Amino acid sequence: MRLSAEQHARFEREGYLFFPSLFTPAETGLLNEAVPALYARREAFNVREKGSDAVRTNFAAHLYSAPFARLARHPRMVEPVQDLLGEPLYMHQFKVNGKMAFEGDVWQWHQDYGTWLNDDLMPTERAMNVAIFLDDVNEFNGPLMFIPGSHRKGVIDAKHDLTTTSYPLWTVDNDLIAQLVARAGGKNGGIVSPKGPAGSMILFHSCLVHASTSNLSPWNRVSVYLSLCAVSNHIRRFKRPEYIAHRDFTPIECLPDDCLLQQDPVELPWKNGMPASALVTSSEPIGDIKQAA
Amino acid sequence: MRLSAEQHARFEREGYLFFPSLFTPAETGLLNEAVPALYARREAFNVREKGSDAVRTNFAAHLYSAPFARLARHPRMVEPVQDLLGEPLYMHQFKVNGKMAFEGDVWQWHQDYGTWLNDDLMPTERAMNVAIFLDDVNEFNGPLMFIPGSHRKGVIDAKHDLTTTSYPLWTVDNDLIAQLVARAGGKNGGIVSPKGPAGSMILFHSCLVHASTSNLSPWNRVSVYLSLCAVSNHIRRFKRPEYIAHRDFTPIECLPDDCLLQQDPVELPWKNGMPASALVTSSEPIGDIKQAA
Repeated sequence: MRLSAEQHARFEREGYLFFPSLFTPAETGLLNEAVPALYARREAFNVREKGSDAVRTNFAAHLYSAPFARLARHPRMVEPVQDLLGEPLYMHQFKVNGKMAFEGDVWQWHQDYGTWLNDDLMPTERAMNVAIFLDDVNEFNGPLMFIPGSHRKGVIDAKHDLTTTSYPLWTVDNDLIAQLVARAGGKNGGIVSPKGPAGSMILFHSCLVHASTSNLSPWNRVSVYLSLCAVSNHIRRFKRPEYIAHRDFTPIECLPDDCLLQQDPVELPWKNGMPASALVTSSEPIGDIKQAA
Repeated sequence: MRLSAEQHARFEREGYLFFPSLFTPAETGLLNEAVPALYARREAFNVREKGSDAVRTNFAAHLYSAPFARLARHPRMVEPVQDLLGEPLYMHQFKVNGKMAFEGDVWQWHQDYGTWLNDDLMPTERAMNVAIFLDDVNEFNGPLMFIPGSHRKGVIDAKHDLTTTSYPLWTVDNDLIAQLVARAGGKNGGIVSPKGPAGSMILFHSCLVHASTSNLSPWNRVSVYLSLCAVSNHIRRFKRPEYIAHRDFTPIECLPDDCLLQQDPVELPWKNGMPASALVTSSEPIGDIKQAA
């Protein structure tokens, strides 16, 4: 799957591409069925909403759940990103975000690359965000909101918000958000939120500023939210545990296009639990760790 | 201004009517200009968002601000409500809701009549909510959401939520919300949110279940949010202070249609401050108070 010149140009300009109904209802159904068992587990990799039992985000399901392990190697997801970044990719982060009916809380305005730079020492923004809808997304269940073109601003100063929600985030100042929205067209297109049926996919630049509001509707808005990083751009610090920021920089090899329905065999290295090493963290760059050893 | 038979029928069926651009930009502008001075005042009648200085709601501006005093007597607002309720009206509640850019917090699902019954002992639901947009309302700045037809369910059991936001509310159970949305069409119209330019007006039934999400956008969504009650249906208890639930049951007399632009003279009984009596409250019905006196 190669992208057209028009898609490349649009990605450069807007910072995202939307692929409605990229996965079929049957494929999405297999992923969706696996979610309740993931969310039920009382493990560090399930972060719950502030003051609620609802799961805000589940980490690293591709290492212990077969359907998600297949998705992590799916050519319809990996190949367009490889086409845009032009080199082999590894899985930097893999989340199944809840945004559950009635309970899903806001994600404040932020760039993902802000976190990867500040926490993980990822050298450049050569990494891509991928959102795959496991539920229909409409205006009422807290869709992702983007400021088109905001990725062209590069890396923005951010402040570490540790209190608003249950998940710490490097968030962007309100005045700058207002400027970026105005520059992108103000009330005429300065904010966009791609909506569509379950199975739709969004690719967006790691510097694209985004947010999502709370979900007051009776409809879950579960989505897979993963990040593929160019192998040469791998992170240089393990300040966050491995279940959040992965440390295996092996290039992804795609499975066949029908892998979800065929239930192709996949390795599940954490199927019997996370190794203790995945929780070991360090504030030193990995180069220094190696020298010290 | 009389409503058509079709509008009456639609109100019966859906529980709301939407009037886009009912007030002109010049009229809305005069109201909007008066807001910052109202919001700047450090008085009990300004309720601020939890953990923020942004005003969530301002009460009783029609008693101390001339433009809002005129709006409270405006025929384009009062006459259609009189037509629907079929008798003289008094002002039960008058708010200027902030839902400010970046700061505006959620209003959970609720019926307004729940509060008026539980707190104010309003005998029946013969009262009407009116929302007048002072800013453009779009999908990103926390528009009102309605469940069409939910008013026909009548008064719903509610629980008093004192913690989620800074303003206590009798909120409706999530399971019932899900049922009402499903009955109203589910993802096909089970939730609606009228949007439009500043100056638009919504009339909605006091039993219509509604909510609004947080405003993460850089655009304020200030609206006048008032309640007109049939005079015969006036409240029977002064449990809430008078600046919240009014105690003057005199029928509203309308001003001319051009009163906002002509700046017609209006009485402003609280222009020099709220009387001390406005803060006196009682948990006894007013009939009993009179007997005791």
